[in-house]
Amino acid sequence: MNRFRNDLPALSNKDYFNYGGQGPLPKSSLHAITSSWEKIQELGPFTNDVWPFISNEIKGTKSLIAEFCGVTSHRIALTENVTSGCVLTLWGLPFSKGDRLLISNCEHPGVVSACKEVAKRKDLHIDILDVLSLRKGIEGSKENQDEVIKTIEGGLTARTKLVVLSHLLWNTGQIMPIELIANLLLNQPNQPYFLVDAAQSFGQIPIRDSASKVDIYAFTGHKWAFGPEGLGAVVLSERVLLEARPTLVGWKALTNESSIYTNEIEPFHKDARRFEIATSCTPLLAGLRCSLNLLNEQGSDSERINSIKLRSKRLWLELKGVTSINPVLQDPPPAGLVSFTVNSKLSPNQIVKLLAEESIYIRVLEDPIWLRACVHITSTEEEIERLISALKKL
Amino acid sequence: MNRFRNDLPALSNKDYFNYGGQGPLPKSSLHAITSSWEKIQELGPFTNDVWPFISNEIKGTKSLIAEFCGVTSHRIALTENVTSGCVLTLWGLPFSKGDRLLISNCEHPGVVSACKEVAKRKDLHIDILDVLSLRKGIEGSKENQDEVIKTIEGGLTARTKLVVLSHLLWNTGQIMPIELIANLLLNQPNQPYFLVDAAQSFGQIPIRDSASKVDIYAFTGHKWAFGPEGLGAVVLSERVLLEARPTLVGWKALTNESSIYTNEIEPFHKDARRFEIATSCTPLLAGLRCSLNLLNEQGSDSERINSIKLRSKRLWLELKGVTSINPVLQDPPPAGLVSFTVNSKLSPNQIVKLLAEESIYIRVLEDPIWLRACVHITSTEEEIERLISALKKL
Repeated sequence: MNRFRNDLPALSNKDYFNYGGQGPLPKSSLHAITSSWEKIQELGPFTNDVWPFISNEIKGTKSLIAEFCGVTSHRIALTENVTSGCVLTLWGLPFSKGDRLLISNCEHPGVVSACKEVAKRKDLHIDILDVLSLRKGIEGSKENQDEVIKTIEGGLTARTKLVVLSHLLWNTGQIMPIELIANLLLNQPNQPYFLVDAAQSFGQIPIRDSASKVDIYAFTGHKWAFGPEGLGAVVLSERVLLEARPTLVGWKALTNESSIYTNEIEPFHKDARRFEIATSCTPLLAGLRCSLNLLNEQGSDSERINSIKLRSKRLWLELKGVTSINPVLQDPPPAGLVSFTVNSKLSPNQIVKLLAEESIYIRVLEDPIWLRACVHITSTEEEIERLISALKKL
Repeated sequence: MNRFRNDLPALSNKDYFNYGGQGPLPKSSLHAITSSWEKIQELGPFTNDVWPFISNEIKGTKSLIAEFCGVTSHRIALTENVTSGCVLTLWGLPFSKGDRLLISNCEHPGVVSACKEVAKRKDLHIDILDVLSLRKGIEGSKENQDEVIKTIEGGLTARTKLVVLSHLLWNTGQIMPIELIANLLLNQPNQPYFLVDAAQSFGQIPIRDSASKVDIYAFTGHKWAFGPEGLGAVVLSERVLLEARPTLVGWKALTNESSIYTNEIEPFHKDARRFEIATSCTPLLAGLRCSLNLLNEQGSDSERINSIKLRSKRLWLELKGVTSINPVLQDPPPAGLVSFTVNSKLSPNQIVKLLAEESIYIRVLEDPIWLRACVHITSTEEEIERLISALKKL
């Protein structure tokens, strides 16, 4: 672990708690990126000699991501970021006027406004699913899971055609029982599509049982997976591959580039490539693979989340011990996101600023206005101690 | 120029004629990219300290691109590639059932299939504009320009709502009189939008008078501008900013991320950011700026295109001198793309392969099946000589 931490220059000069915003990039991953660029220049950049290299880069990256997600590679489309993954297929789903979208009230503003725009143009209705007020540490306990399921059942209507929910809520830090919800939706008469924003889960918690069972499972490499910014992916269900049409169409979606003017046959790949667009930054693939391999070296996904939970529990307990601080969750967090409020004359933004002066970095959430500190497998006891003691001083 | 060429490792081990596919990346630009990454890790990656740096990177890059395009920065949206730039606004234009799209028959398959998909879903008709059969070296001569204008006038109908044409045709290598066409379209009763694919023009020919006058002028940095793959831009007209709605919506398009669930007010930026999506690879910005500055150091845009034309004329003349070779254009090319056919028992793909064995790289075009060799300011006489002598040997 120390060797891994030493490979992260971003952690060498600060106490870092913003993994949920962006994770640090290992030196080895940056090196892998520049080596890939050098290889492309040596063989190409646009030659028959470079195509096998690029094609292997794509294949190898998709296959590693597929392994993390417990699916086969043909269901993986590479994207530029989480939002693209969430939204790319959205416009091509077969919605009918009057259909309803059920969106949780803990979703990212980008996805929410994309859904609002789809609804506006296609005459759909939006229903809000209140998962914000379920504040217990939802994870394994049957009682908590039942509460979420009950809330979703209450939100579903006969016209609900899409449910949008994050796997790990970015504000409360709770884990949603995605697999159970997927089963529930299968049994609805209207069989709603299930879009899961996995921005906070990929690289942090075990995701195989969830990623493989929903229609759209979208994430990025640059948060909990220590990958470079600008590269993410989305897992798509066989149903979405069959029923959704490509919208932001580019050459990557096409099976055959000739006779494009006259060809009346469907020109799109049948696998997830049909939702890929055009040229992207190939060298990033090597960077993400390097980071994912490093992550694997730190332990299995369940070992990693246990190590994260030890840290977040400690942070949560310490925060709870300070009179002026209230953690958002009643129980120890099920993962590495720890949100809290501070009873202080200082505004949350002022607190973040003052901490930054001591090289301690946490963030403010907008809605609700909370402070959030994330811990990862690379977080140290000393970092947590310094955060707590700095907060006490305020 | 020698110093610039020496900064391009891709050119050190081959004779390179595929600038139209992808340009080589300068060592300095790769260095700028890695330095930017290191800076982001030092200050961030997700901290208040890193935002001013990232914001300056974006501002500086947009402002340099804006200067190349002769527009103000607020009309520039950064994109991942040319296709995204062409297509991002397409879905948000106010088309009505029965509207017609006039698309040239020399467009890239990605853009064509995107238009076909829009037409299919919105009940629009597609008309094909034949610019492929105009084979003279269209550039300054009034006669040639008149011919293009006449062809376009012939293709326009009262319901034409969009015209799609490349600035520099990727197969014939001809330059279209974009500014004249833009003026023509302004005077049509239906005022069609004008979408220009500038994949082959940005970084190669002067574009200010064209880029500033059309509705959508989309390009990438990784072809003629020597930038990294995965970063492009699109110039949008004030009219598109006003009339087109964002489709692939993400946080970059939003003015305010709070109250997103309840806010009924339009949440999008009024400038071109309304068409940007979400997190992208920030370090690429430094790479593109470095390449554009290097390009500027090699001379003004008119000096650069003159230097390219000297080379393409030489190549065109030499090709014309070989009995079995027919250049596609009747006159010397107006820019650096030189397409031709070879009367040979070998297929074009076999020819490309045989040349590659001598480290000479040209490409096959799909439709029509032609060979294409591109020359840039970095092309040398010796490279051209070696290409010609290798072709003669076949």
